[in-house]
Amino acid sequence: MPTFPDRLADAVRRRGPLCVGLDPRAESLPAALLASAESVPAAFEAFALKVFDLIEPYAGVVKPQAAFFEQYGAAGLAAMGRVLHAARERGFVTILDAKRGDIASTAAAYAEAAFSPAVWHADALTVNPYLGADAVEPFVSAAVAAGGGLFVLVRTSNPGGGLFQNLQCDGRPLYRAVGDAVASWNAPTVGECGLGAVGAVVGATHPRELAELRAALPDVWFLVPGYGAQGGTAADVRAAFRPDGLGAVVNSSRGVTFPFHPSDVQWEAKVVAAARAARAELR
Amino acid sequence: MPTFPDRLADAVRRRGPLCVGLDPRAESLPAALLASAESVPAAFEAFALKVFDLIEPYAGVVKPQAAFFEQYGAAGLAAMGRVLHAARERGFVTILDAKRGDIASTAAAYAEAAFSPAVWHADALTVNPYLGADAVEPFVSAAVAAGGGLFVLVRTSNPGGGLFQNLQCDGRPLYRAVGDAVASWNAPTVGECGLGAVGAVVGATHPRELAELRAALPDVWFLVPGYGAQGGTAADVRAAFRPDGLGAVVNSSRGVTFPFHPSDVQWEAKVVAAARAARAELR
Repeated sequence: MPTFPDRLADAVRRRGPLCVGLDPRAESLPAALLASAESVPAAFEAFALKVFDLIEPYAGVVKPQAAFFEQYGAAGLAAMGRVLHAARERGFVTILDAKRGDIASTAAAYAEAAFSPAVWHADALTVNPYLGADAVEPFVSAAVAAGGGLFVLVRTSNPGGGLFQNLQCDGRPLYRAVGDAVASWNAPTVGECGLGAVGAVVGATHPRELAELRAALPDVWFLVPGYGAQGGTAADVRAAFRPDGLGAVVNSSRGVTFPFHPSDVQWEAKVVAAARAARAELR
Repeated sequence: MPTFPDRLADAVRRRGPLCVGLDPRAESLPAALLASAESVPAAFEAFALKVFDLIEPYAGVVKPQAAFFEQYGAAGLAAMGRVLHAARERGFVTILDAKRGDIASTAAAYAEAAFSPAVWHADALTVNPYLGADAVEPFVSAAVAAGGGLFVLVRTSNPGGGLFQNLQCDGRPLYRAVGDAVASWNAPTVGECGLGAVGAVVGATHPRELAELRAALPDVWFLVPGYGAQGGTAADVRAAFRPDGLGAVVNSSRGVTFPFHPSDVQWEAKVVAAARAARAELR
């Protein structure tokens, strides 16, 4: 099987850089779908599978958000597992957005959960760098061994993300120090596409920093949240790409999956239209 | 019900500051217990309940580590939920060590999972501050609303924890900037015991920084990992306490729960002896 960076490159070449985030909320689901499901987690699963059908022509990458499944306990997480397996079977590249971070054997246990075919079997996992190198490296080893990838939080899209990430540390912002660590973890993993398995999360809401990090980390895949509902535009994310058109996947969650009122019986057409529009805008 | 800081103070006054970490690993469990269980998660649950019986005279606080349960998928997490509920029923203060961190409604979903009686129903949750104020504040609101607490990663116990945490940011280490943010979140939550609901994780392996942070954050509870198997001594953790003997809970995981070989039929006596010795040493 090709490595993670090469599979991601193939997905982006075939269907463009749109990543569809699955952040399911009971109150946002189509009312009829929710009413006919046995439970909220069952409704999340049915909704996700339907969304996969609808977006398939427009996106090659999906990103389930673990928090919304964990909110329903073990039943919610069982549904998350089925959603991840179903996405993989349909040929999507899957990013489990769980922002995990811990040390040594604990980090290895999270990585085992993320990549093992017997558990979540995701292609990639988001991780938090605050605990340092010996917290990220077990994730890197496990990802590479499984043919998977990581996206390390570097500069997040939220308004308060700069509180620590923008602190001037030894003459440069903290996010640049984290970015350089990502580059060092990524370098040994660069695949045929010229990009590696250890990516960076960089928000669309910071276009200047996106351009700065793109220049500093030429062989690092970026996962770019904050496009669409959070305010980032297609112009804002342009700087995330390399001249060859690779280098970034741009996430939209609510903008693609919930562009309708729960009572709207035309919701499927609205998801298709939103995915098509996002793909066209990101070309 | 008393607030989280006052319940924690009560537990420490009654049973001392030992927190027993549950980091279950199949290969470390008593062999007979593992062999007689229907599954690894069932063995984790049976082991945890037995450990609760054994340590009850010596520790008032337990800390299950989510990663080791997540390694077994939804079945593992269902067992984690039963372990947390059982610990609470027996009167332990429970800290769910999951190091969660995300933004806005996603953070709120993780917090709902941690504190809801229908999901994990923990007393406290560990959280990662890298995403900034608007990532931590939804956890603070949810914890306070539920009568629970948080422990924010400030200076972790792992050897590589200083990579980012010790960077000099605007003239002081990053962990001090995070510590000051913790103090500001904690201040409105201070209870009768003089400590608040938003605590800090500060490793026993850094006694100088522990003393520095104790002085800087006098009304913040510390969760101190790294004692015992990771190398921190009772002398190292002394600086974590206030003059009134409150202010810190000191975690030991492997040192208390796995002081035996899996084939050892006397394992229960060894857990009791390890817990008793840790409690005596920390007095």
